[in-house]
Amino acid sequence: MKCLIIAAGKGSRLQQRGDSKPLVPILGIPLIERVIRSAMEAGADEFYVVIGYQGERVRLFLERLADRLVIRITPLVNDDWDKENGVSILKARDVLREPFLLLMADHLFDPNLVRPLTTMTLGDGEVVLVVDRNTRNPLVDMEDVTRVKVEDNGPMERKKIRDIGKGLADFNGFDTGIFLCSPAIFKALEQSKEKDGDATLSGAVQLLAAAGHAKAIPTDGFWIDVDDPAAFQKAEQALLKRLRDKPNDGPVARYLNRPLSVWISRYLVQRNVTPNQISLFSFLCSLLAAGLFALGGYFALFLGGVLAQFASIIDGCDGEVARLKYQSSDFGGWFDAVLDRYADAFLLFGLTWHLLVVEVNGWILFVGFMAIIGSFMLSYTADKYDNLMRERIKTGGKAGLRMGRDVRVFLIFLGAVANMVLPVLVLIAVVMNLETLRRVSIARNAQY
Amino acid sequence: MKCLIIAAGKGSRLQQRGDSKPLVPILGIPLIERVIRSAMEAGADEFYVVIGYQGERVRLFLERLADRLVIRITPLVNDDWDKENGVSILKARDVLREPFLLLMADHLFDPNLVRPLTTMTLGDGEVVLVVDRNTRNPLVDMEDVTRVKVEDNGPMERKKIRDIGKGLADFNGFDTGIFLCSPAIFKALEQSKEKDGDATLSGAVQLLAAAGHAKAIPTDGFWIDVDDPAAFQKAEQALLKRLRDKPNDGPVARYLNRPLSVWISRYLVQRNVTPNQISLFSFLCSLLAAGLFALGGYFALFLGGVLAQFASIIDGCDGEVARLKYQSSDFGGWFDAVLDRYADAFLLFGLTWHLLVVEVNGWILFVGFMAIIGSFMLSYTADKYDNLMRERIKTGGKAGLRMGRDVRVFLIFLGAVANMVLPVLVLIAVVMNLETLRRVSIARNAQY
Repeated sequence: MKCLIIAAGKGSRLQQRGDSKPLVPILGIPLIERVIRSAMEAGADEFYVVIGYQGERVRLFLERLADRLVIRITPLVNDDWDKENGVSILKARDVLREPFLLLMADHLFDPNLVRPLTTMTLGDGEVVLVVDRNTRNPLVDMEDVTRVKVEDNGPMERKKIRDIGKGLADFNGFDTGIFLCSPAIFKALEQSKEKDGDATLSGAVQLLAAAGHAKAIPTDGFWIDVDDPAAFQKAEQALLKRLRDKPNDGPVARYLNRPLSVWISRYLVQRNVTPNQISLFSFLCSLLAAGLFALGGYFALFLGGVLAQFASIIDGCDGEVARLKYQSSDFGGWFDAVLDRYADAFLLFGLTWHLLVVEVNGWILFVGFMAIIGSFMLSYTADKYDNLMRERIKTGGKAGLRMGRDVRVFLIFLGAVANMVLPVLVLIAVVMNLETLRRVSIARNAQY
Repeated sequence: MKCLIIAAGKGSRLQQRGDSKPLVPILGIPLIERVIRSAMEAGADEFYVVIGYQGERVRLFLERLADRLVIRITPLVNDDWDKENGVSILKARDVLREPFLLLMADHLFDPNLVRPLTTMTLGDGEVVLVVDRNTRNPLVDMEDVTRVKVEDNGPMERKKIRDIGKGLADFNGFDTGIFLCSPAIFKALEQSKEKDGDATLSGAVQLLAAAGHAKAIPTDGFWIDVDDPAAFQKAEQALLKRLRDKPNDGPVARYLNRPLSVWISRYLVQRNVTPNQISLFSFLCSLLAAGLFALGGYFALFLGGVLAQFASIIDGCDGEVARLKYQSSDFGGWFDAVLDRYADAFLLFGLTWHLLVVEVNGWILFVGFMAIIGSFMLSYTADKYDNLMRERIKTGGKAGLRMGRDVRVFLIFLGAVANMVLPVLVLIAVVMNLETLRRVSIARNAQY
């Protein structure tokens, strides 16, 4: 599916962030790259970008981006970038002769908002707009947003748009800037310009709406028009907030680690650090913590405990930076998991050693061994084999404790800081192995 | 797809094994059940079985089998079971009005032989026979087999059958007893009976062949007619041999453990033991071995080593018995893997303890820890995540050592018997962790 993106305007209200608005980085990635990446995720695979103000810089950036992502991006030059946005769209008239996605370079959005458009069959001469039904959306600038009035009766799916415009008093949704257009849009733009002297996209949609050819797809998902510093801040917050909604996070991750790691990731994305480097750094912190444990003495134990918890927090950043910078990879997730297993084992071994330095005792050795093997088994039973078994464990295990890595390291931290190493080792040994046993029983029963 | 199975004959040459041939168990499972299970695997889902000699016993067995497998099995009674096999087939005339599979209750086969028949579109009035092209097949009784002459020119796929019969001098294949029939077979049987006085299936196929309606599908896969004690022995050997062809087996498994475990499984299938019970028994042997290690002293060490290797051999039986008795399950594989991880860890912990009893030494403790974690990581990296990562490691790792569990336990056995525990622990610690590192590097490079 082809996709047209309007990136010609000056964006003067965001000038403090950079002279070319499409190239303004938000959490490390330029706006236009975020829009193109999200559109790709939704199914677009060929791009046309109308450039204007600072066009040469944008063109160069897009050239390199096309190489990096191995896609085609065709720049279309609009020297009249200070005119209305319809003028920009008309530059694509000769190259787009089939239905196409129309997006704005400064509108960020969840790919799920675009996805329904990519599988839709468009009626003759039709235009479909994704309309935000949440008229109290806090991310929307009520002064500046384009308002939409959609036909009211019944469910809203693909209802006719009655009216569209900034000043609308009677409205029930917002223009998200996400369109699926038939080439009829070009004719509508010409007409609107000639008849009403209105060369805006809204003007053209209004004309199509009058003819019953403008339709709406409702949404309440994430989108934001990054128009001024206030919106920019809101967008940054929204992107960061989405990192925190990970359903698999345990309690410690959710309430302690994640808020801190997101706060750190916000700075890391500005630096030239890869997610795998972050994983490795976190691992080295854990190794150092294990070494401190093994040294013996409360001071080293305390330091090690704090460092272990710090490493556990940093351990969240690799995935966050990867998602913010579109650097997620199968290898990255796998590498992180492998390092985590080593880190867990070393931390528990360090604690065991810490006790053995004071007193050589077979029971301590045995408890340490059981804690290490129990922790390992917990990860192993969760991942081993296929998703089927994982599903069974999840489904059958709702009442069970969430004893993930976040809780494990937090217990180690508490044990070290409170100088209660043996009780914590015993606790981990007992809980981890019992949970493994519980999983075996769940998986066994689920098979019938 | 419907499937007709002929199970009416007396099978007097196999009387020594049991009075009802279809119910004669081979490696713990009656012949007729093996045929039905294999047909199910190939895609058949509704069965008609012609019963005759000892018909009531067979009918009762099929009733319970249908309950167990949750399928429909309809018995068709042939009181003239001492007549030719065509008489049995004609009993299905009124119930089979569409193309159906035709199988013999005493012919075992690889489901792959039947699979192509289940997706084939049959020409009008056609019959297709799977023909064994290996005229030197050692599983075939040359005196008794039905010979086939297939049109010779070009590739054999769906060529015309020219002639079929036991006495054929000019032949290039064998009748495997696996057919896909259109209902035309019934008319051909009637004709052959009336015209030539030949009420055998071969007679009917000969008639169809003369009209150009009998086709052949070539194979060189596994099938055997279990007709007499000699064939029964061959069939047993062939089923056992198939257990040994596991491409994932390491060198110790392939050349030492598997031959022994198959030999043991042969007896276990006769007993009422489940695969999971075997897994558990092997695990308990490993635990006992670990305990013997920890006792200290060479005698206990030696015994423990032998017991550990014995447990490793038994560990192959669970999967073998499961496959022989159609008891494979996702849970079984998962359970076995979980127990193996515990067993590995306990064995290595036992060895470490064995050394620490003599001399408490931090290095020994560290080596033991690294051996345990390294062994774990090897299993974890292989299974963690998805098949994708496993594929990468496999593809990129052809030159690498096969350091599976079989090798690990064998090293432990050697170290214990030779009283060289520390060197073996060091070896395992080094090799397992280096191999993990190698996998990380392979997985990393494979992503580009």
